[in-house]
Amino acid sequence: MLWSKLFIPTLRENPAEAEVVSHQLLLRGGYIRQLAAGIYNYLFLAQRSLLKIEKIVREEMDGIGAQEMLLPALNPAEVWQESGRWDVMGDNMFRLKDRFGRDLCLGMTHEEVMTTIARGELRSYKQLPQIWYQIQTKFRDEPRPKSGLLRVRQFIMKDSYSFDLAPEGLDIAYEKHRQAYCRIFDRCGLKYSAVEAHSGAMGGSQSHEFMVASDAGEDFVVTCEKTGYAANLEKAVSRPVPPASPDPDGDLTPEEFHTPGKKTIADIAGFTGLPETSQMKSLIMVADEKPYLVLLRGDHQLSETKFGSVAGAAEVRPARPDEIREWFGADPGSLGPIGVKNMPVIADLALQGRKNMICGANKDDYHLKNVTPGEDFQTRYYDLRQVAPGDTSLESGDPLEIHKTVEIGHIFKLGYKYSQSMGLRVLDESGKEVTVIMGSYGIGIERILCTAIELYHDKDGMSLPASIAPFQVVVTPVNIGDLGQREAGEKIYKGLLAAGVDALMDDREERPGVKFKDADLIGIPYRVTLGKKLASGMAEVVERRTKHTVDVPLDQVITYIRERL
Amino acid sequence: MLWSKLFIPTLRENPAEAEVVSHQLLLRGGYIRQLAAGIYNYLFLAQRSLLKIEKIVREEMDGIGAQEMLLPALNPAEVWQESGRWDVMGDNMFRLKDRFGRDLCLGMTHEEVMTTIARGELRSYKQLPQIWYQIQTKFRDEPRPKSGLLRVRQFIMKDSYSFDLAPEGLDIAYEKHRQAYCRIFDRCGLKYSAVEAHSGAMGGSQSHEFMVASDAGEDFVVTCEKTGYAANLEKAVSRPVPPASPDPDGDLTPEEFHTPGKKTIADIAGFTGLPETSQMKSLIMVADEKPYLVLLRGDHQLSETKFGSVAGAAEVRPARPDEIREWFGADPGSLGPIGVKNMPVIADLALQGRKNMICGANKDDYHLKNVTPGEDFQTRYYDLRQVAPGDTSLESGDPLEIHKTVEIGHIFKLGYKYSQSMGLRVLDESGKEVTVIMGSYGIGIERILCTAIELYHDKDGMSLPASIAPFQVVVTPVNIGDLGQREAGEKIYKGLLAAGVDALMDDREERPGVKFKDADLIGIPYRVTLGKKLASGMAEVVERRTKHTVDVPLDQVITYIRERL
Repeated sequence: MLWSKLFIPTLRENPAEAEVVSHQLLLRGGYIRQLAAGIYNYLFLAQRSLLKIEKIVREEMDGIGAQEMLLPALNPAEVWQESGRWDVMGDNMFRLKDRFGRDLCLGMTHEEVMTTIARGELRSYKQLPQIWYQIQTKFRDEPRPKSGLLRVRQFIMKDSYSFDLAPEGLDIAYEKHRQAYCRIFDRCGLKYSAVEAHSGAMGGSQSHEFMVASDAGEDFVVTCEKTGYAANLEKAVSRPVPPASPDPDGDLTPEEFHTPGKKTIADIAGFTGLPETSQMKSLIMVADEKPYLVLLRGDHQLSETKFGSVAGAAEVRPARPDEIREWFGADPGSLGPIGVKNMPVIADLALQGRKNMICGANKDDYHLKNVTPGEDFQTRYYDLRQVAPGDTSLESGDPLEIHKTVEIGHIFKLGYKYSQSMGLRVLDESGKEVTVIMGSYGIGIERILCTAIELYHDKDGMSLPASIAPFQVVVTPVNIGDLGQREAGEKIYKGLLAAGVDALMDDREERPGVKFKDADLIGIPYRVTLGKKLASGMAEVVERRTKHTVDVPLDQVITYIRERL
Repeated sequence: MLWSKLFIPTLRENPAEAEVVSHQLLLRGGYIRQLAAGIYNYLFLAQRSLLKIEKIVREEMDGIGAQEMLLPALNPAEVWQESGRWDVMGDNMFRLKDRFGRDLCLGMTHEEVMTTIARGELRSYKQLPQIWYQIQTKFRDEPRPKSGLLRVRQFIMKDSYSFDLAPEGLDIAYEKHRQAYCRIFDRCGLKYSAVEAHSGAMGGSQSHEFMVASDAGEDFVVTCEKTGYAANLEKAVSRPVPPASPDPDGDLTPEEFHTPGKKTIADIAGFTGLPETSQMKSLIMVADEKPYLVLLRGDHQLSETKFGSVAGAAEVRPARPDEIREWFGADPGSLGPIGVKNMPVIADLALQGRKNMICGANKDDYHLKNVTPGEDFQTRYYDLRQVAPGDTSLESGDPLEIHKTVEIGHIFKLGYKYSQSMGLRVLDESGKEVTVIMGSYGIGIERILCTAIELYHDKDGMSLPASIAPFQVVVTPVNIGDLGQREAGEKIYKGLLAAGVDALMDDREERPGVKFKDADLIGIPYRVTLGKKLASGMAEVVERRTKHTVDVPLDQVITYIRERL
């Protein structure tokens, strides 16, 4: 294509509203424009890149025998009510009514619809296994859309669903997906890792997220270089840093002390002169409307995901101050486990074996010392805390690291959640009805482009992998008015096209600096420049990522480029 | 692919809910399943066919230099309010609010959004011309979804938009589209015609619809075999059949006569013994809330589209009985033009030059005879009527025909409608601000599939054109348990794939009758059967559309098929 005919509205300056690099560069490079909060127009370059990504995804999904379908964005309320998610999705779901007042929503995902199709058509084990997928637009009413295409209200997903007679079949479908996802992300040129993820409270036995390390991310992943361990912070496990000072010896009795105005863990540490690790933190959590008192070591943070799993709840939230006042007769700053009868008391594993600790007295401005779990109050121990900086591998004691990441894919053993609630059963070989076991698998199409930009950019712009860049090569006569340069450029450009290379001809009447800057900004992997060296029969070939420049004889340019792509 | 692994839920019987052939066969062939009224799941076969159609559309659009984009389905209300269509679209538009109560809608088309992009980025004549397109999902809250995928609430469109500095540029973009559309529909194997269409009341100078003749259609097209004339019934023109009896001679005076209980044109014809052509029909129409009395010859029907154009109105409707009573003091059965002062009286051209006719007296149960337009009342004449059976070509007097059709594409010179209301201007060569002139062009992707089925089917099922059939060839060993048949089949199947033919291997353990029936139903253009003739080194090749059967030596099957595709 000829650049002069194309609509590539590049910008000189970084738009003020863009914080993360991919957002800045997608705007500056003329890939996208915002239409409304979290809703973007994908212009020519973005769509060209997204089509290449979709093609890769399609080929790899077809490669594992998955069958492509296309399901509607408009979903009737009934299918979501049946699974129970009409309520669970809350404000994140876009809801509307049709002209007859019937409730509809915009699909956030398609487990429900896929299950209704399967339930209507699958009768026998002979029809299994099945893997069905689509590349389709999803909708989610994000409360705080941000970071360009990383957190939006409308986006494209490849979502697939597997249907099997037995768990062994699901294992195979899951593994096929894991491998296909690796091939997809490899072909897209990403650096990523597959990490263990939370599987949800309502069933689901295994789950992995595909993560790209990036400061633009909002997920945290815990890794151990030594052991290869990698897990989402939500579910990662660790050995804690040991307490900063030993517990007082002896079988002491809890003793109240006055702590006027001291409400936080830090306040009490300062007041007592003892480290935060000597305290028990009391959190009041509500899981599916049932309250729990949750105990953590003073310096630890709760993983709501782990708590939700322990409580077996779909929704968890911190208790409100008015609920706490009603249940405890005290404010959040002075709570503790002693004497609590109206709710379960559960404690993190890091408190097991500790003694004579400090906690709230359930009386405003009072705390207790010499409190020993298991003696002064009864509790059960679970892994409830988030991994903290300094924690080490549970397995080996080696150091752990915590990184910011962006999720680009997620594979998930659903188990029987939807097939059970929606009645998806087939007859097995012996004629007995069995509930089908399902898996669900997703890839965020735009996120592949965004994370590629986050990974590969410099001060001049993007440097995209050749497989997903909107063009692979740009041919740039320095001065398009120079007939020799123009003709040499056209010859190479046509030769590249004929050789199956996706080339762009920069035929604009612009200064060379403008053309080079634009090409660098939009991230085309190779630039072939026709300039002064043409006199000696040479073109200049520049690799975008390394800025490595080579003079190549005109008749060898096409071969040179093809060898590198 | 192997049929045994695929999800192709064919049905034996025609589903009761399906009236038109394409709907029946899409359901029976396992292409689609309904999710809600006018909302369908596209299963494997439908999506495979739609992807082929989209590829053809994409190639031809790219071929005219159009640039692909992707715009959001979720649109903020503001852009539609700016163009005025937020109100005009009425109940046809799906509307919703986000979590903050902001108004959104689901895009029915994208003139507004495209114009906002252009207005934000186009500054100079140097950036023109542009053609931008997308293949994207549209939403329309149809009051009566029906006919399977022909009238739905969610569908895929290729929509494109052209931006030019001057009308000559628009003419070029329009012509490019016309040719691209012909190539697209030709490649999809359709029989179609491009007919003149109504361009809308609010600007737009030229418009063509691409129509496929079909009983499943809801549009009517008027054609003249002799002259090649073709136009949508909404705007077609004709010479009327002459009046069935001559008008009475002489300069007579209007005379009231009693017509108790006679309200319709037919009633009065029976009562007077004079033909319907001797009467003037009085219709009260409301155009943008302004009333008109519209006169037609008794046997003619109003074209609301033509009336809307004459009135220059965006919305037209018949007056309500209560309005008529208020304005005329009489019921609809006794209305006429004489003495009407409170609204314009306009008449169809077929009344020009007529005299001494019959019409209502604006008094219940009374009519007038001897009424002469232009003498007894003043009026202006316009082409207001629909072409009627028996009418002849306006140009030549040759016979006209009226057909039912389905619209598959529409090209449209928008003119300045959106660029003016939304302020899309660029600087021309002399530095003067000029308003950009636009065109809008659409193709219904699913309609290509549906009309292909409507055109090409028989009692056994679909017989799709090879370019858009989900598979081009099915290879069917009569008995998959027979090793010789199976191996011969696999060899041909793999050979076809290697030759770039989209082949399907029917490896199911089913009776041959079931396999043949299924292949005929889903419409695969060629079937290669391995059966008894294998002993003499032959395969049977059946052409789906003609049922023409040939024995082909095994080693020539691939060549034979390739020559025919």
